[in-house]
Amino acid sequence: MIEYRNLRIALLGGGAVGAQVARILLEQGEELADRVGAGLELIGIAVRDVNAPRSVDLPQELFTTDAESLILGADVVIELIGGIEPARSYILQAITSGADVVTANKALLAAHGPELFAAADQVGAQLNYEAAVAGAIPIVRPLRDSLAGDTVKRILGIVNGTTNFILDRMDQAGDSLQEALDTATTLGYAEADPTADIEGYDAAQKAALLARLAFHTDVPLESVYREGITGITREQIESARKAGYVVKLLAICERLTDAATGQEGVSARVYPALVSRGHPLAAVHGGNNAVFVEAEAAGPLMFYGAGAGGVQTASAVLGDLVSLARRHVVGGPGFAAAANADLPVRDIGQVITRYAVTLEVNDEPGVLATIARVFSNHHVSLALVEQSTNVRAVLVDGGDGPELAPSTATLVIGTHEATEAALAATVRDLAAHSVVTTVASVLRVEGA
Amino acid sequence: MIEYRNLRIALLGGGAVGAQVARILLEQGEELADRVGAGLELIGIAVRDVNAPRSVDLPQELFTTDAESLILGADVVIELIGGIEPARSYILQAITSGADVVTANKALLAAHGPELFAAADQVGAQLNYEAAVAGAIPIVRPLRDSLAGDTVKRILGIVNGTTNFILDRMDQAGDSLQEALDTATTLGYAEADPTADIEGYDAAQKAALLARLAFHTDVPLESVYREGITGITREQIESARKAGYVVKLLAICERLTDAATGQEGVSARVYPALVSRGHPLAAVHGGNNAVFVEAEAAGPLMFYGAGAGGVQTASAVLGDLVSLARRHVVGGPGFAAAANADLPVRDIGQVITRYAVTLEVNDEPGVLATIARVFSNHHVSLALVEQSTNVRAVLVDGGDGPELAPSTATLVIGTHEATEAALAATVRDLAAHSVVTTVASVLRVEGA
Repeated sequence: MIEYRNLRIALLGGGAVGAQVARILLEQGEELADRVGAGLELIGIAVRDVNAPRSVDLPQELFTTDAESLILGADVVIELIGGIEPARSYILQAITSGADVVTANKALLAAHGPELFAAADQVGAQLNYEAAVAGAIPIVRPLRDSLAGDTVKRILGIVNGTTNFILDRMDQAGDSLQEALDTATTLGYAEADPTADIEGYDAAQKAALLARLAFHTDVPLESVYREGITGITREQIESARKAGYVVKLLAICERLTDAATGQEGVSARVYPALVSRGHPLAAVHGGNNAVFVEAEAAGPLMFYGAGAGGVQTASAVLGDLVSLARRHVVGGPGFAAAANADLPVRDIGQVITRYAVTLEVNDEPGVLATIARVFSNHHVSLALVEQSTNVRAVLVDGGDGPELAPSTATLVIGTHEATEAALAATVRDLAAHSVVTTVASVLRVEGA
Repeated sequence: MIEYRNLRIALLGGGAVGAQVARILLEQGEELADRVGAGLELIGIAVRDVNAPRSVDLPQELFTTDAESLILGADVVIELIGGIEPARSYILQAITSGADVVTANKALLAAHGPELFAAADQVGAQLNYEAAVAGAIPIVRPLRDSLAGDTVKRILGIVNGTTNFILDRMDQAGDSLQEALDTATTLGYAEADPTADIEGYDAAQKAALLARLAFHTDVPLESVYREGITGITREQIESARKAGYVVKLLAICERLTDAATGQEGVSARVYPALVSRGHPLAAVHGGNNAVFVEAEAAGPLMFYGAGAGGVQTASAVLGDLVSLARRHVVGGPGFAAAANADLPVRDIGQVITRYAVTLEVNDEPGVLATIARVFSNHHVSLALVEQSTNVRAVLVDGGDGPELAPSTATLVIGTHEATEAALAATVRDLAAHSVVTTVASVLRVEGA
């Protein structure tokens, strides 16, 4: 057996991920030491309550409530407590005291990434965060290193397992959103308060991180356009299926060229979108995640795996740890994702995509031409229109005795590419138009 | 504009990949320089014939036939000439003269990897080879770094685009092997001499590299068991489809525990296998590649993309270049894939998998029991048996005037897990048995 000098590892957080990281470090320390060329000594686990129950049986003497002292004695700090504070202060303290850092904290990085990356850069510390972006799926190194000589054009990511589980369930079992959410909660795919997932906040944080990696540009979380899945109905899923599509909540990062100036910019956004069933993303079922990357030279690439789960996420954390421990042993700084390109971040209005609009209209002569004119007024051109008449047997009593309600028609309209701004103006006009009863659904179509 | 010091890049080879690498270096040099923190100056392209036609228009003055002088003046050497010699000597010369190296040469690495990695390690040079393993798909960094803290249990890779195109075509269009190969040749998916692809040599080289990365163990090319796809028939594909399977040529790398001693070992092998249509690998169509990784903590992961093509492969080469150029700028050695685990490489006979065996047998009473006994003699247990009778109207003249030939039956037998050795012995006995007319097909079943 080879004797190595030890790297002292401080773990902040003893939750589902932290407990698994500790377990694997303790169980496989010797093998990991061989890979690193140094021992990985877990010197302590900082938690709020040392007596709280844990998902894994760990030596009681490792637990402490004194995170700051633990950090001071560490070569590497693994931050798994989540949230903004005290996580941010702990990471800054670790960097200042000369430690390298591994974190899985997407909320913190999306909100304070530039500050933390700059602090690490300044002292040559490493700050690794693979687990923050897509759980167990290795995506940071592929984007930062493997594609460093290529130009990423677009990323379409299914980066939230809860919403993918719900949408997949609605698609496969015909559940309503509420039914699917209930199942997700029962099976542990959704938390008691599912807001961060179903409203797209979690996906938006990951979109900001992905965009930074892909475009070498800081993308503030505030500039990530976000829509959740709470408006998605069984009817939308059903009619998507009939048309050969599936609804997925996508985190989209895209390089955009301004039509007027020709200047490059980037967009990061999250919304539920129609994806063709032939697209590799359509085959991502249940709580799985996948990141589909379109690069100029490499072409389409996809990275698929578990987006969450304690032991799965622990894999990404330990990969980060072993990588930076190797670097710690041989010397030389780490690489943050450079933000040197510094491209302007575009407003959602400038985004160009295709749309599927479902309208309920009065079934009267010339209605199609009228509707088509609304689209063309805003230079949105139509790719496909499907009309079906809804015969209504409802009787309306207008005061002059009962009479037959005017029958309505459902129009499903697919557009060619248009800007969000043009589409929004079109929808505003449609909603106000006298022949339109309801704008029943507006969904974007992604992944041509 | 920032002025950087230049890294001098020597390119060996001006073929499909080399020409694209040169083009992108020349076109996007400034942006790449910003990412690296140093200029990337292409100082020359060594080729056999400076006047040969190129797929990309490049400055004539870059071309030279004097590779050795070019290497002497370089900080980084990109080797894209392929084959064993002179590629091996050039790479060793580059390492000795203090340059870092990028190569896409799978044949060379599979045959002489340990020598080259050791040479690089000795002087602290970097030797990157992402393009050698799965074309444009980033797989080296995920396996070497992202999963460095995890334990890879198994890899199932579709790593040869030509054979995947052919098998996919047989499956989707009902082509025979020859028809599909002809189409592949016409469309440029197969070379004039397709032997390296269809006999599995190319996949075997990649399996050796993947196994080294995944198991930190040198796996000599000679120890990679290899079967190509030349024996695959339209009938096998068709009956696989009926049973819910698709035939894929898989490169399989697996951690194996010896049943008797409990000692860990590894297996690397290539053969066409049945994959369930529900498995993510079944959805890999055409010339695409995918590497499916089963890791202990991370669970199943899949990496998907283009496995070949000049510009696609150039993406991987440039990613390697930018990564090592960054390291060159900030200092510190690179990491070869450590082979420190040094696990024993197992013979194919020790491999355990499931099998689908198709037999033609005489249709007589008790035949099923007889066949079942042959399997159980070798401790191979059956999971499924399907029998269909083939009524024959053929007349046989045995000398005593024409008589009706005995009718035969087709048996499709699915086994539980068994060793290759046990299965091979079973098949040997079956072939020699009086009731068996033909052993029509033996295929392994992978990806449970």
